[in-house]
Amino acid sequence: MAAGSGMIIKCLLLFLSFSFSLNLFFLYLSFGRPSDRLTWTRTAALEAEAVASLSCSGHGRAFLDGIGSSQGKPTCECYACYGGSDCSQLLPDCLLDADSGSLLLFETYWKQKAESSAVVVSGWHRMSYEMTGTSLMSVELERVIRQLHSTVGNANAKRKFILFGDGSSQLLNAAVHALSHNSSSPASVVAAVPYYALFKDQTLLFKSENYEWKGDASHWNNVSGSSGKFIEFVTSPNNPDGNLRRRPLLQGPSTKAIYDYAYYWPHFTAIPTMVDDDIMLFSMSKLTGHAGSRLGWALIKDEEVYHRMASYTETNTLGFSHESQLRALKLLKVVLQGGGRDMFQFGYTTLSDRWRKLSTSLSLSTRFSLQKISAQYCNYLQRIREPSPAYAWLKCEMDADCERVLRAAGIMGRPGKEFGASSRYIRLSLIKTQDDFDLLLQRINALVDQEGVKSIF
Amino acid sequence: MAAGSGMIIKCLLLFLSFSFSLNLFFLYLSFGRPSDRLTWTRTAALEAEAVASLSCSGHGRAFLDGIGSSQGKPTCECYACYGGSDCSQLLPDCLLDADSGSLLLFETYWKQKAESSAVVVSGWHRMSYEMTGTSLMSVELERVIRQLHSTVGNANAKRKFILFGDGSSQLLNAAVHALSHNSSSPASVVAAVPYYALFKDQTLLFKSENYEWKGDASHWNNVSGSSGKFIEFVTSPNNPDGNLRRRPLLQGPSTKAIYDYAYYWPHFTAIPTMVDDDIMLFSMSKLTGHAGSRLGWALIKDEEVYHRMASYTETNTLGFSHESQLRALKLLKVVLQGGGRDMFQFGYTTLSDRWRKLSTSLSLSTRFSLQKISAQYCNYLQRIREPSPAYAWLKCEMDADCERVLRAAGIMGRPGKEFGASSRYIRLSLIKTQDDFDLLLQRINALVDQEGVKSIF
Repeated sequence: MAAGSGMIIKCLLLFLSFSFSLNLFFLYLSFGRPSDRLTWTRTAALEAEAVASLSCSGHGRAFLDGIGSSQGKPTCECYACYGGSDCSQLLPDCLLDADSGSLLLFETYWKQKAESSAVVVSGWHRMSYEMTGTSLMSVELERVIRQLHSTVGNANAKRKFILFGDGSSQLLNAAVHALSHNSSSPASVVAAVPYYALFKDQTLLFKSENYEWKGDASHWNNVSGSSGKFIEFVTSPNNPDGNLRRRPLLQGPSTKAIYDYAYYWPHFTAIPTMVDDDIMLFSMSKLTGHAGSRLGWALIKDEEVYHRMASYTETNTLGFSHESQLRALKLLKVVLQGGGRDMFQFGYTTLSDRWRKLSTSLSLSTRFSLQKISAQYCNYLQRIREPSPAYAWLKCEMDADCERVLRAAGIMGRPGKEFGASSRYIRLSLIKTQDDFDLLLQRINALVDQEGVKSIF
Repeated sequence: MAAGSGMIIKCLLLFLSFSFSLNLFFLYLSFGRPSDRLTWTRTAALEAEAVASLSCSGHGRAFLDGIGSSQGKPTCECYACYGGSDCSQLLPDCLLDADSGSLLLFETYWKQKAESSAVVVSGWHRMSYEMTGTSLMSVELERVIRQLHSTVGNANAKRKFILFGDGSSQLLNAAVHALSHNSSSPASVVAAVPYYALFKDQTLLFKSENYEWKGDASHWNNVSGSSGKFIEFVTSPNNPDGNLRRRPLLQGPSTKAIYDYAYYWPHFTAIPTMVDDDIMLFSMSKLTGHAGSRLGWALIKDEEVYHRMASYTETNTLGFSHESQLRALKLLKVVLQGGGRDMFQFGYTTLSDRWRKLSTSLSLSTRFSLQKISAQYCNYLQRIREPSPAYAWLKCEMDADCERVLRAAGIMGRPGKEFGASSRYIRLSLIKTQDDFDLLLQRINALVDQEGVKSIF
């Protein structure tokens, strides 16, 4: 009996010591782990994870500031042509938005990088007008941007001034403003057709005495020498047609160029050379896909031009969102891991695949044609790469109003006229979500199939 | 012995069951609690807490995107006139910045609200150009702004269009642009001296054919009827002097007013009435102190004016930072808890205390005088309140160059000339950190003491 008791006591002591050790272990897990020391960020983190975990059937997503969020119930926001509270319903008769230039295909990429790309903004984060010291710009962001250009080799950022903008949009007119300074007569602002509409709209907006919009650069090719100062916007690769435009049409001593390099990144184009121009514009919008951050930058050679542009942005909007700068820094640090290959490869693979599918479909058509883009050697990828443009620049070979034809087929594009071109052209966005592209391809296929049916009868 | 063994066994069983229960409890704490289910937000949360916990001796703080953050080592950024790696050194000979209009006194407030005001921005948060549906603006933020105006009773937001801006700064010229539309001759833009310099700078910036800067409104008081269209900026309470300006100086059928109500909140002024004007501008900068967010808004009565202003902002910068909008929504929801009393009371208490101290000090001076502001009944606080202006509008009674006098005393203010006023005036900021104010008061006291010394000898 006593021996039995002894054995029981021994067993119990063994259990107890095991249980006690477990107590200590759990005590450490509960209160001792560094990862459990979260205090004031926990609520925000929980909120973000709760919203992200909302199921939207793969055809949408919920955001922290979605409609209903004030009542603690953010709802799904569906991709184009999907509806229902969980985005599960395909809306077959809806007009598909292929107009937007939002690079939504990268949503998938950033979801894969959820952990490394998230950022917590504290209530007291950088409340001043100034960002770093007396500067309106983040010194760290500037550093990371320079590093990215150097890594990708697309633009020479060395010995350049960097100026941020509320999107590169703000920098378009900032550059025109700076270059038209002290002209005896208004400078003529031009761009070769087809051109991005904002060049025209912004130049016209302010009705400035210093500059005026003069349309298609090719009209002024032979007369520019005798007609005062010209400022030419050069977009490369070009929006809408994706062609590399390395030089302005207008040359001469009184001609200046503003280079819009928003699309000069390896997901959209081969990088055949490291560009090194006087004013070069870039944007988060077309680099990481964050159009909503409204953050662009200019690389500027000349100090006086830089100061005039900086003075323009400061008087216009008194600086650049500190929240956007903080987030851009985080995102670009993620991009730089592995020299950007991860993101650029993701974008290139997706876009070249889309281009191939669309080209194949339209190769059967006589009614529609696509712009020509060649495979080209890319210094960044160090190999020949297939085309992967942001947009299809579609031509209706038989219809004068291409917009009408596509609209009837359920596709809303951006009409050629907005680019100074004929209404036989239309721009179709290839950079939105996979759902958007799948539906676009399906409707284009249906249009091409109609041709086949018509040609049979 | 057997009885003893039984007792021991009982005790051990008791311990064991207690330890077992404790294990179950810890197991729940470690893995069962909802608060421990954080996944992709954890890293960002830890980073934010680590930076926030950096000790900067109470005279500075570190930010996630501070210099060195790319190397994982953000450093302290010190308040004016403090230095050293932990901001512990007072730099006695430094020039104190009392120029800036950054409402940094609210840093303390938002640190108190750390948990409720933090927000996590995911990598894929609202990447589109559009914010909600096809709108560039957050519907929820608009709703919360309307609610705040209704709660505070400072402005009638009912049946008004709301337009956001990249700071209210962007909306100044947007309003001038909209109001000067279709004028046969350029509209004259004016403001009564002393006025905020950006009215002038922005009007001059674009050299527009539609409007021109015509300076002090009081010069045009009697001639405005015969001189074409006038647009008058009315700031109330006024920057720099804090006086309520309820009506424009210029009246008449061809006169329009743009009301800058950035400071019309209960921390700066009594709210004697709910204003209800055609174009009313507000800003996060002077409401919650988040100047760096660059987010303002206009309440607009007329639909056509609204559309012209919206078209201006869209062409100018293509929308407003989504990160800033997300954070502003979070901050304003915190402000609205308890009807805003918490934040407004904090601001009012701090600023009225500062004003009292500065007034007391300067009451002994014959060399310097302050603007007069009276105690006034406030509809929001429902009692008579003491003055608590954002700025001291100091006059040097004996010196023509007030800026020089103050600079010699180690104080950098904003010279009267920038407000269209005499250089006998200078604006001193009272809204920065407590350190800034303490040093300002100390140096003002020293100046006043000098007078005493001089008058004795």
